[in-house]
Amino acid sequence: MPRYKMVIEYDGTNYVGWQRQLNGLSVQECLEDAMSELFNALSQATASGRTDSGVHAVGQVVHFDAETSIPAEKIPYALNTLLPRDISALSCKIVNDDFNARFDAKRKTYCYKLYTSSHRRPTLERDHEHIVLPLDVQKMKSAAKQLLGTHDFKCFEASGAVVKSTVRTIYSLDVLETKIDNLQEIEIYVCGNGFLYNMVRIIAGTLVYVGLGKILVDDIPKMLESKDRTQAGKTLAPNGLFLVNVEY
Amino acid sequence: MPRYKMVIEYDGTNYVGWQRQLNGLSVQECLEDAMSELFNALSQATASGRTDSGVHAVGQVVHFDAETSIPAEKIPYALNTLLPRDISALSCKIVNDDFNARFDAKRKTYCYKLYTSSHRRPTLERDHEHIVLPLDVQKMKSAAKQLLGTHDFKCFEASGAVVKSTVRTIYSLDVLETKIDNLQEIEIYVCGNGFLYNMVRIIAGTLVYVGLGKILVDDIPKMLESKDRTQAGKTLAPNGLFLVNVEY
Repeated sequence: MPRYKMVIEYDGTNYVGWQRQLNGLSVQECLEDAMSELFNALSQATASGRTDSGVHAVGQVVHFDAETSIPAEKIPYALNTLLPRDISALSCKIVNDDFNARFDAKRKTYCYKLYTSSHRRPTLERDHEHIVLPLDVQKMKSAAKQLLGTHDFKCFEASGAVVKSTVRTIYSLDVLETKIDNLQEIEIYVCGNGFLYNMVRIIAGTLVYVGLGKILVDDIPKMLESKDRTQAGKTLAPNGLFLVNVEY
Repeated sequence: MPRYKMVIEYDGTNYVGWQRQLNGLSVQECLEDAMSELFNALSQATASGRTDSGVHAVGQVVHFDAETSIPAEKIPYALNTLLPRDISALSCKIVNDDFNARFDAKRKTYCYKLYTSSHRRPTLERDHEHIVLPLDVQKMKSAAKQLLGTHDFKCFEASGAVVKSTVRTIYSLDVLETKIDNLQEIEIYVCGNGFLYNMVRIIAGTLVYVGLGKILVDDIPKMLESKDRTQAGKTLAPNGLFLVNVEY
């Protein structure tokens, strides 16, 4: 059976996350159900990694094996007629039998979106974190620079997580600002070789605290050294987080 | 009783539109309910104009009369604790007793958002129209220029509408494009002294047809002359439409 690599996009609002769960509908379950119907055989999809409940993806990558007469590039068209409207296949191709969407991922890029405004903005609420006070973006950019490179990111990991190593490499961490009248929109793009549990949402929360003046730019190196979760900022809400891209 | 001018924002997805209807929940009903509770008196709000079912607003303007000890600029804070999350008051001030949000409106700006992609994009579906084929934005910009100024926009009015005059003035009509990989995002901003029923959605639909090559740029002048709705493009879906700003 040939192996396929497929890129998918989803609005995570109504899902318990990528991975199948007993307590609710997952993106994986919806995708595998649609694939099973299309290929007329029980189908399994392996993603580059889990995304949490409420987290979105515009470039999640999955692999699967299938026996089908449908050309690879036509599979998204067929699949999208069977998928719910908040999940979509964007592209598909045949890859080597040993390609693994999870273990072969070299770099991942996430985007965290937020806005600052005295009042909530209903047209942004669905996929942005709302911060009431304006943020000092220059300070956030300076703090972001301190996080670049290879570090032990233990203090940016949700407490209770168990992984062998908490050392990761961040290749880029960019803070982009758009300001119109009283509305400040901020996008935080982070690219790394891998991320600990909740790491992007804690990095975003830490940069927000820097922007608010609750954490100083100079505090970042000792925060990393401390390996203490309580030294970093709060974990921002899942609805502002997007998995943008996975590189192999 | 002093008169107030207030700017509100709403995600129109779950509403039958601005105006009270018997067949469902309106933004007006929610706002007036919250105002009535806050001011402890039956309250009425008059908007700059109706928005249709599913249409959004980031700068709708309303006026109302109220007797309250709450300072005007604090009213949004109080009101937002009583409003559903998809409606929000952004600012409020006392104005002259004869200010009328509807009749004093001089200019309105709308934005129509759409994207082109072979496949639907779930993270954009909520508030963008989806067009499958790529659009020629240069042609759309040229066509937009032909619509500037004062014209009889009868052919851009939903059939069956009854208004005294179908002459309106368009001050600006801009087509903005962002292109990343296979995703083309387009925002159409239109500012005018007033709009006929469905006029912005029909203008957007006409520009899309121009971008697809179904209507030629040179067809626009005779389309205006024809005063025939069937000569213009289709009415795009309400979910891509935003009332951006009202000037007085």
